Amino acid sequence: MKVLITGGGGFIGQKLAYKLAERGELRGQPISELVLADVHHATPTVASFPVAAPVVDITNRQQVDALFADDYDVVYHLAAVVSGQAEAEFDLGMAVNLHGTLNILEAARAQKDAPVVVFASSLAVFGGEIADPVGDHSALNPQTSYGTQKAIGELLLNDFSRKGFIDGRALRLPTISVRPGKPNAAASSFMSSIVREPLQGQTANCPVTEDFGHYYLSPRRLIENLLIAAELDGAAFGQNRAVTLPGLTLSIREVIEAIRKVAGEEPVGRITFEPDETIRKIVLGWRWDVNSDKAQRLGFKRDQTFEDNVRYFLEDDIAR
Amino acid sequence: MKVLITGGGGFIGQKLAYKLAERGELRGQPISELVLADVHHATPTVASFPVAAPVVDITNRQQVDALFADDYDVVYHLAAVVSGQAEAEFDLGMAVNLHGTLNILEAARAQKDAPVVVFASSLAVFGGEIADPVGDHSALNPQTSYGTQKAIGELLLNDFSRKGFIDGRALRLPTISVRPGKPNAAASSFMSSIVREPLQGQTANCPVTEDFGHYYLSPRRLIENLLIAAELDGAAFGQNRAVTLPGLTLSIREVIEAIRKVAGEEPVGRITFEPDETIRKIVLGWRWDVNSDKAQRLGFKRDQTFEDNVRYFLEDDIAR
Repeated sequence: MKVLITGGGGFIGQKLAYKLAERGELRGQPISELVLADVHHATPTVASFPVAAPVVDITNRQQVDALFADDYDVVYHLAAVVSGQAEAEFDLGMAVNLHGTLNILEAARAQKDAPVVVFASSLAVFGGEIADPVGDHSALNPQTSYGTQKAIGELLLNDFSRKGFIDGRALRLPTISVRPGKPNAAASSFMSSIVREPLQGQTANCPVTEDFGHYYLSPRRLIENLLIAAELDGAAFGQNRAVTLPGLTLSIREVIEAIRKVAGEEPVGRITFEPDETIRKIVLGWRWDVNSDKAQRLGFKRDQTFEDNVRYFLEDDIAR
Repeated sequence: MKVLITGGGGFIGQKLAYKLAERGELRGQPISELVLADVHHATPTVASFPVAAPVVDITNRQQVDALFADDYDVVYHLAAVVSGQAEAEFDLGMAVNLHGTLNILEAARAQKDAPVVVFASSLAVFGGEIADPVGDHSALNPQTSYGTQKAIGELLLNDFSRKGFIDGRALRLPTISVRPGKPNAAASSFMSSIVREPLQGQTANCPVTEDFGHYYLSPRRLIENLLIAAELDGAAFGQNRAVTLPGLTLSIREVIEAIRKVAGEEPVGRITFEPDETIRKIVLGWRWDVNSDKAQRLGFKRDQTFEDNVRYFLEDDIAR
């Protein structure tokens, strides 16, 4: 069982690698090698099996073909330019999120045996004219370049799977919170910052009002869902390999209440509310009224309360 | 008013060119030049304005950039590898329908002023798990590579329009019947053949049973709709520039009855019914229960009865 993670240096890639090292197996077979490909050198996970961390630019077809010199059994394609950056740097977003994904799919197709490919899509594929709740049969009508590129990735993954070139599965990720590390260029970055920074004694700004509703999933539950995605029988996905992951819909007020319950009043006092029109314009186009029936039927899981998300952050990212 | 038609040598491109020559104007302005780009040399239409017919391979970015040496006001992007061929020759379909469309969109984006771009999409974007009727807010869940590539074209056209790079409009074409000329590699080819050939004294085969339901539009009405698409205000399309064109849903039995009403019993006797599993498998995945509310609100038109389609063929393609 040889596993590749693109974006292996990112926080999801690193957490997934850690979990794979802990498990030692995937799809009922011992992992023989893990490859953490990233545009920057990824930290190799300590594991009982070899872990490689090659620097790969997925926009470069030759580099991708070299990465696929040996066949993989499971490919996690997580590498992406995030929403805010894909909006600000259109050509970069197209190069990485569209052409980079095509390069990965074509290299996977060129393998002797079709690998399982798990693709990180996004709730940002929904938007525009589509009625709430958005669900498994809603039109893809993204209102960002990031959402457009992810929607195209889903369509390609479906067609490559239908043709038997790969055995694909796409998960539409809710906003992952609490994300460890530093703020990034994602428009959703603040949805982790307002928890993460105050819990560590720093201030954080919320650029939208307290009634802003959004759809969340914790990193811990996401990693569990990424394992489920690889282990399900491909046929279980039916004629659409993309599913919207279960999440929790909450207002900023409820997020803050969860921080208060877990960590008391002090961190809450470190959250400021300075409006930011650029971010507001992007995130108000995202949907929070979400139906994830198909994913739930397939066994994917959500968090029980956002207090869990806060606790997972303290346990997985601060204590460790 | 400078107009480009890609696929200008195809039957829709030729009919559109003929209509533009007849009108002499588009969007309220006299046409100063018409360019019929095609992979084969297109027949230049006789018109009161200059008509060029360059041979262009849209999969070649340099050739596309050369085609866009001067700016266009309106671009009709009709060039495509058809459904049956895109399924049989996957790489060719991807090259023309995906990368070729990207080349056209990027060249249009590079213009000084954003052109109106009218893109021929297809009802083949629908399929799979989506409930009937399919409509403006149904998920894009194509079950062919052609449908996948057209769906991707819609998403790109939407994003390029949202960014202000172009002023795009995509029309999801029903099956166009009666298509003049010879049978082609489209899986839908027989839906014209069974009318066209018998009316000209030849036999034609129907590879599906008489109760096969499908969604049709005549070439004459399609050309009118292509003009409407270019002349509407882009803002009228709202947050999704793709609309499903109005059409008529009919069984093969009703199509044959229309032939009988217009041309008598004799041509009907020239239709054979030999099953073809390959074609059947593709076309049974297509939808015929279609809601075209948005397009109707925007002023797009369907035929009144299929007898009209038969008559238009006799008037426009046989008499002329």
